[in-house]
Amino acid sequence: MTEIAIMGYGTIGSGVYEVVETNSDIIRKNAGDALHVKYVLDLRNFPGQPVEKVLVHDVSVILDDPEVKVVVETMGGVEPAYTFVSKALAAGKSVATSNKELVAKKGAELMALARETHVNFFFEASVGGGIPIIRPLLTCLTADDIEEVNGILNGTTNYILTKMEREGTSFEAALKEAQDCGFAEKKPEADVEGYDACRKIAILLSLVLGKRVDFEDIYTEGITRITREDFAYAKALGGWKIKLLADGWKEGDKVYAMVAPFLVRPEHLLYAVNDVFNGIMVHGNMVDDLMFYGRGAGKEATASAVTADVVMAVKNPGVTVYEGWSSEKQELADIGDTDHQYLARVAEKDAARFEEEFPGALKINAKVEGECGYLTPVLPERTFVQKAARAGVKHSLRVQM
Amino acid sequence: MTEIAIMGYGTIGSGVYEVVETNSDIIRKNAGDALHVKYVLDLRNFPGQPVEKVLVHDVSVILDDPEVKVVVETMGGVEPAYTFVSKALAAGKSVATSNKELVAKKGAELMALARETHVNFFFEASVGGGIPIIRPLLTCLTADDIEEVNGILNGTTNYILTKMEREGTSFEAALKEAQDCGFAEKKPEADVEGYDACRKIAILLSLVLGKRVDFEDIYTEGITRITREDFAYAKALGGWKIKLLADGWKEGDKVYAMVAPFLVRPEHLLYAVNDVFNGIMVHGNMVDDLMFYGRGAGKEATASAVTADVVMAVKNPGVTVYEGWSSEKQELADIGDTDHQYLARVAEKDAARFEEEFPGALKINAKVEGECGYLTPVLPERTFVQKAARAGVKHSLRVQM
Repeated sequence: MTEIAIMGYGTIGSGVYEVVETNSDIIRKNAGDALHVKYVLDLRNFPGQPVEKVLVHDVSVILDDPEVKVVVETMGGVEPAYTFVSKALAAGKSVATSNKELVAKKGAELMALARETHVNFFFEASVGGGIPIIRPLLTCLTADDIEEVNGILNGTTNYILTKMEREGTSFEAALKEAQDCGFAEKKPEADVEGYDACRKIAILLSLVLGKRVDFEDIYTEGITRITREDFAYAKALGGWKIKLLADGWKEGDKVYAMVAPFLVRPEHLLYAVNDVFNGIMVHGNMVDDLMFYGRGAGKEATASAVTADVVMAVKNPGVTVYEGWSSEKQELADIGDTDHQYLARVAEKDAARFEEEFPGALKINAKVEGECGYLTPVLPERTFVQKAARAGVKHSLRVQM
Repeated sequence: MTEIAIMGYGTIGSGVYEVVETNSDIIRKNAGDALHVKYVLDLRNFPGQPVEKVLVHDVSVILDDPEVKVVVETMGGVEPAYTFVSKALAAGKSVATSNKELVAKKGAELMALARETHVNFFFEASVGGGIPIIRPLLTCLTADDIEEVNGILNGTTNYILTKMEREGTSFEAALKEAQDCGFAEKKPEADVEGYDACRKIAILLSLVLGKRVDFEDIYTEGITRITREDFAYAKALGGWKIKLLADGWKEGDKVYAMVAPFLVRPEHLLYAVNDVFNGIMVHGNMVDDLMFYGRGAGKEATASAVTADVVMAVKNPGVTVYEGWSSEKQELADIGDTDHQYLARVAEKDAARFEEEFPGALKINAKVEGECGYLTPVLPERTFVQKAARAGVKHSLRVQM
């Protein structure tokens, strides 16, 4: 019997508690030992619920108990998670977390600490919820030069964009509906401004490069400015969609990363990833394109990944299984140098000026009152921005190549 | 420096040789040691090629050299691969193979042998080519009750079916084209009769269950009887497609498996898997549906997976990383008991008889000369077969639910 503790009994933490209970036989078989939740840490009380009998309010109960071998961290946020996790690792306990803020901000340090004390700091659930992506990158794609990771990494925004596309609703109306269904938070900024996807691509890129990518360095644009008109043009282009993509890629010795809404063609791998689902495309120089698809959020799916990390920790006592990434900082190149094709929207009165500024732009045959939409040739971001300012472009969207 | 040997210098074996060469820096970093191909075993000579200087014709050179730590087996077929691999494992060398015939037939024995000598028998490339699927099943989905694995596991047949669907060609013409493009063998039976997909689903199901599933027990139907008329009905049903699915699933304490062409609706995960690509759907009771997508065959992609297995073996000297499955046999339940909906085709003259036999069947509005097509209600396979015989059904296809 291996004793574990769960820090944070919210959606994911209570999910882990349930998974350990429901799938106990399978977990025992796979881990080589039964799991038992000895403590659950939460500030709240849960009177009458089964968790009540293992509930503690003081983290030191967990940290000071040598019987606890693995700690699950599902509190979210950098603090106090960072302090608690550091102490757990220092105390010789492995940690499994779903907390992308923590991993993106403090991953390198925590992995180094885990190596020092010969335990593990696992975070499969921090990206892509239940989708296996971190362990496949670390153990299956080890013979490839991974040149790109590009994904739909946020279920909330994908739900909103799918809703807008299918029902012609506005961003505000789709957000409201997502909130009513529990797919979006009351404070939706982390999702709709792209911050969540940004942290996730920082984690994936750090893994691929073996160096620390600071999420603060990643150009990040959310979906709040996407309108019905954008979808009208996307449809007119042949049923294209708009997806919030989190993309990190290498070009020579340069590394680029960005989070932004993109127009996506039907032929693209990520085109079919709709609703709350996530899809993560990985391109290796040998394996070519792969896609990992599934539920990128949600209680059971995310808890499944966290619990599988616990199983991995139980199977590897005294051994740090993965190196992770170093604390050496990876500089990102300026996305002003990257080339894109753009959907550009201008007021009707500015159409002539636009066409002069962008020779070779294609006018899109869509009925949007008072304005014209164009598809520009491929050109560097920096050039586009300058020309767009001169041409009076009201709104633009990049096209995924 | 870790010395390795490659047995079989065909498409995959030469691919491994190239991957080890091309990505040597990445591999050294990930394995913690550089790889060096000390021997390549093949009956042929390759005069003037770089491989010439490490070529051997006698397997005992490899088996008797204690410097060789990992052996790559890319010969294909059960013998002599089985004899060579057994001897390598017995000699304390880990083995990485892409050979599904070998794994499906002798997997349990070879894994047991690897455990005895504290080495590894890895076979990631035996299913899904370059797609990570075996290691994710063994290391990421360990907290889930895996209830189903359903995949497009054969690229050749998927290419042929995609061709037939898009261009309205006959099976024979599409097969010929696949052969001309190098996507199908001159002797295409293993692919088009479903034997290859059958071995692959046997491997996946054995992994999921931890017991030996004999591929000979799996009901297997190929695509040789699929015609243009089938696609005409599929299209009339709303753009449905026909896919060769390899499906294994649990129902209570029963396990079912089958390989057969199915009608697939646009909403299904595997609908978007076209051409030579593979897609593998995994359903867990917690994680819900996942899909793993990529190149299921081909030189570089498959070699990428084999080489990653070598990296894993190098990183784990003296430790058998996975249990694999036991030699205990898993009985499969009779697919006569499974429920399906069917597309059934009858000659015009038999339509009345059919409608009497299958009340509630929907007539499909497609123009196929001299016959009628129906969609039956959901009913047990056994019942369908009996009724179909009485009703004079010429050809039928199951519908993927």
